[in-house]
Amino acid sequence: MNSFGRIFRVHIFGESHGESVGIVIDGCPAGLLLTLEDFIPDLERRKGGTQKGTTPRQEEDLPIFKSGIFNGKTTGAPITILFENKNTRSSDYEKLRDIPRPGHADFVARKKAGGYEDYRGSGHFSGRLTVALVAAGVIAKKLLGLAKTSPQNSPQTPLQSRGASEDPASEGIKITSKILEIGGETDLEKGLQKAIDAKDSIGGIIECCTNGLPIGLGEPFFDSVESMLSHIVFAIPAVRAIEFGTGFVAAKMFGSEHNDAIEDMNGKTRTNHAGGVVGGLTNGNELVFRIAIKPTSSTPKEQTTLNWESGKVETVSVKGRHDLCIALRVPVILEAVTAIVLADLVMAEQKIPRIINPRIL
Amino acid sequence: MNSFGRIFRVHIFGESHGESVGIVIDGCPAGLLLTLEDFIPDLERRKGGTQKGTTPRQEEDLPIFKSGIFNGKTTGAPITILFENKNTRSSDYEKLRDIPRPGHADFVARKKAGGYEDYRGSGHFSGRLTVALVAAGVIAKKLLGLAKTSPQNSPQTPLQSRGASEDPASEGIKITSKILEIGGETDLEKGLQKAIDAKDSIGGIIECCTNGLPIGLGEPFFDSVESMLSHIVFAIPAVRAIEFGTGFVAAKMFGSEHNDAIEDMNGKTRTNHAGGVVGGLTNGNELVFRIAIKPTSSTPKEQTTLNWESGKVETVSVKGRHDLCIALRVPVILEAVTAIVLADLVMAEQKIPRIINPRIL
Amino acid sequence: MNSFGRIFRVHIFGESHGESVGIVIDGCPAGLLLTLEDFIPDLERRKGGTQKGTTPRQEEDLPIFKSGIFNGKTTGAPITILFENKNTRSSDYEKLRDIPRPGHADFVARKKAGGYEDYRGSGHFSGRLTVALVAAGVIAKKLLGLAKTSPQNSPQTPLQSRGASEDPASEGIKITSKILEIGGETDLEKGLQKAIDAKDSIGGIIECCTNGLPIGLGEPFFDSVESMLSHIVFAIPAVRAIEFGTGFVAAKMFGSEHNDAIEDMNGKTRTNHAGGVVGGLTNGNELVFRIAIKPTSSTPKEQTTLNWESGKVETVSVKGRHDLCIALRVPVILEAVTAIVLADLVMAEQKIPRIINPRIL
Amino acid sequence: MNSFGRIFRVHIFGESHGESVGIVIDGCPAGLLLTLEDFIPDLERRKGGTQKGTTPRQEEDLPIFKSGIFNGKTTGAPITILFENKNTRSSDYEKLRDIPRPGHADFVARKKAGGYEDYRGSGHFSGRLTVALVAAGVIAKKLLGLAKTSPQNSPQTPLQSRGASEDPASEGIKITSKILEIGGETDLEKGLQKAIDAKDSIGGIIECCTNGLPIGLGEPFFDSVESMLSHIVFAIPAVRAIEFGTGFVAAKMFGSEHNDAIEDMNGKTRTNHAGGVVGGLTNGNELVFRIAIKPTSSTPKEQTTLNWESGKVETVSVKGRHDLCIALRVPVILEAVTAIVLADLVMAEQKIPRIINPRIL
Repeated sequence: MNSFGRIFRVHIFGESHGESVGIVIDGCPAGLLLTLEDFIPDLERRKGGTQKGTTPRQEEDLPIFKSGIFNGKTTGAPITILFENKNTRSSDYEKLRDIPRPGHADFVARKKAGGYEDYRGSGHFSGRLTVALVAAGVIAKKLLGLAKTSPQNSPQTPLQSRGASEDPASEGIKITSKILEIGGETDLEKGLQKAIDAKDSIGGIIECCTNGLPIGLGEPFFDSVESMLSHIVFAIPAVRAIEFGTGFVAAKMFGSEHNDAIEDMNGKTRTNHAGGVVGGLTNGNELVFRIAIKPTSSTPKEQTTLNWESGKVETVSVKGRHDLCIALRVPVILEAVTAIVLADLVMAEQKIPRIINPRIL
Repeated sequence: MNSFGRIFRVHIFGESHGESVGIVIDGCPAGLLLTLEDFIPDLERRKGGTQKGTTPRQEEDLPIFKSGIFNGKTTGAPITILFENKNTRSSDYEKLRDIPRPGHADFVARKKAGGYEDYRGSGHFSGRLTVALVAAGVIAKKLLGLAKTSPQNSPQTPLQSRGASEDPASEGIKITSKILEIGGETDLEKGLQKAIDAKDSIGGIIECCTNGLPIGLGEPFFDSVESMLSHIVFAIPAVRAIEFGTGFVAAKMFGSEHNDAIEDMNGKTRTNHAGGVVGGLTNGNELVFRIAIKPTSSTPKEQTTLNWESGKVETVSVKGRHDLCIALRVPVILEAVTAIVLADLVMAEQKIPRIINPRIL
Repeated sequence: MNSFGRIFRVHIFGESHGESVGIVIDGCPAGLLLTLEDFIPDLERRKGGTQKGTTPRQEEDLPIFKSGIFNGKTTGAPITILFENKNTRSSDYEKLRDIPRPGHADFVARKKAGGYEDYRGSGHFSGRLTVALVAAGVIAKKLLGLAKTSPQNSPQTPLQSRGASEDPASEGIKITSKILEIGGETDLEKGLQKAIDAKDSIGGIIECCTNGLPIGLGEPFFDSVESMLSHIVFAIPAVRAIEFGTGFVAAKMFGSEHNDAIEDMNGKTRTNHAGGVVGGLTNGNELVFRIAIKPTSSTPKEQTTLNWESGKVETVSVKGRHDLCIALRVPVILEAVTAIVLADLVMAEQKIPRIINPRIL
Repeated sequence: MNSFGRIFRVHIFGESHGESVGIVIDGCPAGLLLTLEDFIPDLERRKGGTQKGTTPRQEEDLPIFKSGIFNGKTTGAPITILFENKNTRSSDYEKLRDIPRPGHADFVARKKAGGYEDYRGSGHFSGRLTVALVAAGVIAKKLLGLAKTSPQNSPQTPLQSRGASEDPASEGIKITSKILEIGGETDLEKGLQKAIDAKDSIGGIIECCTNGLPIGLGEPFFDSVESMLSHIVFAIPAVRAIEFGTGFVAAKMFGSEHNDAIEDMNGKTRTNHAGGVVGGLTNGNELVFRIAIKPTSSTPKEQTTLNWESGKVETVSVKGRHDLCIALRVPVILEAVTAIVLADLVMAEQKIPRIINPRIL
């Protein structure tokens, strides 16, 4: 279904070329100040069209608040945020109706909906919906900034020495994502140029780090922190893999190497191979994970695929307006979904009150 | 929380050295034949003590059916399966009470429960609970074997050419897992010997492949197949990473390389870089994913950690009875959780009836 | 939270005098034809201002489809329906800010939200949101009309003889509600006149009957049909009681009187004291329940209440535009929520396919 | 499904004549002291066989703790409680196999499970499972006794004057249930004698009152307090109706009569026609509701029903060991389910900490 979360809970909807995309956010505490300005920076970060390698499709991407906000503050009732779709060129897609684009959801979407799917620009499967996730992420981040947590967490340091810091200057929970690689290159310009030269699309690797987390978020089995995060991370189109801490490399290490020695009563560890999660729970050290983004499915290169009508394989070249490297736009989306999960887990541990600065008790 | 699933739904409970571990399975159709013999093979596969590199702790691991089965068949009511803990040696752990073992959940568990946790053998955080997952997996596998699916899926073939097969001889949905690497070695004996020589523990990589799946399982966003699978896979202790299809390697590929060309009306693709999931939905090709298992946290090597009482760092050597390489026991657990998720998704698509061979309509 | 259902699932949002009220419907099968005309009749039935005893506030109440519908049919993606609030007169409420109206949610809403609630016209607590329930109900009813059920159900007959009918002409599941009493009078005009004469508001009793249901909907304990129905029925503002079949009268009967004798293999019973539910499950006979609606809280009469600011009790006369008897508008809302629950339960039993008349398999 | 609750969450399982009945309780805070003695009083209250009008079947009804409790205290992990079925006489039921008893779930259970149901003593549909609800209720009550609430609530007073009391001596939340009527008689002995004389079974009406509740539990729509309570109350077999405050009588009242005047800043109202719930939320006054229990379906009188095998109607006299008036055993069950819901809602408002008296922070 299209819902996620237990206490801070989101419901996503919309289609790429339909009326709108949007999100309903249930369970947000009352009294949280929310202005349009809170949303602009992250929405701008997500937007295509302004940097090399991203789609020239430009949407204004202004959030329209439909419910749950009154006098600039949340009321505790469900918050509904809409984004209208204006800059659509459905004609690009009309001619592709019978040709499922390789790597895209066209084929499976059509099978799933028995032919009733909105096929324009991937419809409900479109990355366009991530704009709604980013909006919900803005709210989640604001909440996390208010969380009452102990001050054992550290700024970002190299992985092998990423333990909790001695610095007690906690200021809530902070999430940052960055691109580590494009097309296998840590020099991102170089990776992008590779794609431009090849007239092809390219993928990348993104890392997400969170500081300031309390110890003990999550549950040992089904609701482990890794379970919850990976669940929502794979909701982002084009994600193909996730690893926590040393991740796949852990499989090649000895136990004595991989284990992080606990050094103080706040749980600070000398190293952080665990990426801040042990036994499914946050351990108070920096939460670190990385994801792999596949190359954009829409590549300028010619490809073969099936024609639904003729039942025969033919050649297709996907025109439309597309990102050469969708990974460039993912960091802010990754922060958003991470914030959504962590807000839920932090609220489950009662680290955020039901009312922010109540005026009446 | 300790529940997972929407239609085929499991609830796990228990502690390593408590009375028992167990599982409640809700939503299983009525009329499914279940005998003790159905459970023995997978429970044996999971069991330690019989192969080099696994714990000498031996539990009989016989499932005790407490509800939901009548005259050897499921009734549609919740199925409760218990495993008693008999072969416990809690004294091994009593002396470690104040010394959180590195890599284990001891520290976070104590913080989470405020000192009330059952600390014996990791308590509720123990890998012991996976015996209950395996039992639920047996039931899920039997259900999947009965699923009405189209016959477009293939046996296991090399990744680059893992498309759907022409063979129409579908016999339900089949899941198999295997170890790809131990300690970085594809020769598993060699990997294990490395650990034995180093007197240390070691990790590994496991692959899981599923054939016979219908097209269209899952949902595009929060309930994508990757979301659901990764959610439950990270419930398995020691899992640190998951990747679908080409996974992390996808981030280095060009779009034209990574896209799988659709070749027929059943969705068969020439290659299977997507690992059988596109747009969050199964595409009818083999479902392929790999996970990384960290080295067993309990290593014979001396390590430093904190002493809760003194607040000082000291040296600890974890005795107890442990697996040198827990990854050896994971394949059957991985199959089980995969089956649990897929049974749920397959039932959501009405591919398994509410009653198996009804005697009364 | 503001969600309900497991397979056919609704999420409600909005405020009486905010931008809009609306609903997201997740899990609706693809391929269902939905036109504006489908919605008009039930929306008209709910609308105030056209009959004696209802509010003169008139909203156009035209549903705006924001997602999930394409070319006039559902796509299987979440359906979002908005109703804009145009005809609001918030000034009516501004002066009441500090005076919680007796019988209304003003006081508890303020406490719950710590003073951040949208207090205009009851905000998120307003009966205005039922327009969204009615819209979801229209979709649920259309689905129920397509349900594959056995033809053992009967038209509406007196309670004591309401068994299943012999008539095999089943045409899906049909729900009808009617007012039984207004202000204690079965002559409804008389009841209403009583209120008009007394310059006071008045309540009523509504009955809801459903025919054509399959046997076995629901679960014996937490998801009994009565549990699910009462859960959603009490979501309708002003509902104070619910009873199934003979209801409270059953408490005064002998077992031999109350038991309904089963007369044929379709489960047809001679009488229908059970109201069509036994053991928490539908039994194939007419589903019958009644609810009590309290008198509208906004009465023209003067009342005493607290003044938040002064902390003293004072006299208030609620002006605004209100229903003299809110019960008059409830039947269509009651049908709607009943349809929402039944659609969910019927889909859980796989009586409605995931795709209506698929064009592609 | 067989689960209920969002934060304090229960999963019920078992059959009347199977191995056992039981419950898994997830989300209970750590550190709660639980002894066998805590359970005895309520389990004794529920037990049949000791008072006139209840079944002579006697079970020892000792809870067996299978998980989640360590050194006498909860650990925060799921608590599993089993009750073994020892005193079963399935032969009573074997002969009834083909004769669905009127008023019982036999017929619908068989249809639902396609003939695979455990039919002995109503199987999973049996009132026997309420023993598990009572056990969970004991835990919920202990939690509610620890809730941090404001002291605006009152002891039990006549309905028309049941406002919040001035007495500040709050001691957590307290729930009490009592029988108001048996067979229409408030003199309960008289009602019971009526049934004995008539050689028939009889029903009754039970009231449940809760004091000490904070203001603002619940949500305005789907998770209104009435929604949550009625949901779980109808999980109790034989419940046919529920009403809050004045309930059905409210439908006959004028608004000026029914509205409860707020008298102080704690929300104390002069009267309590609302039964302590306004707008779906608790208002700090006594929570009051009543339920109707139908007469025990198993009556000594001869009745007609269908024979599954012959397809013909025949006469049956239900022997077995049964309650003449099941209502006599319901009060403690009603308290239990009320406590389960309220514990969940109170935890949602963060009025109970995640750890009771933590030893480690």
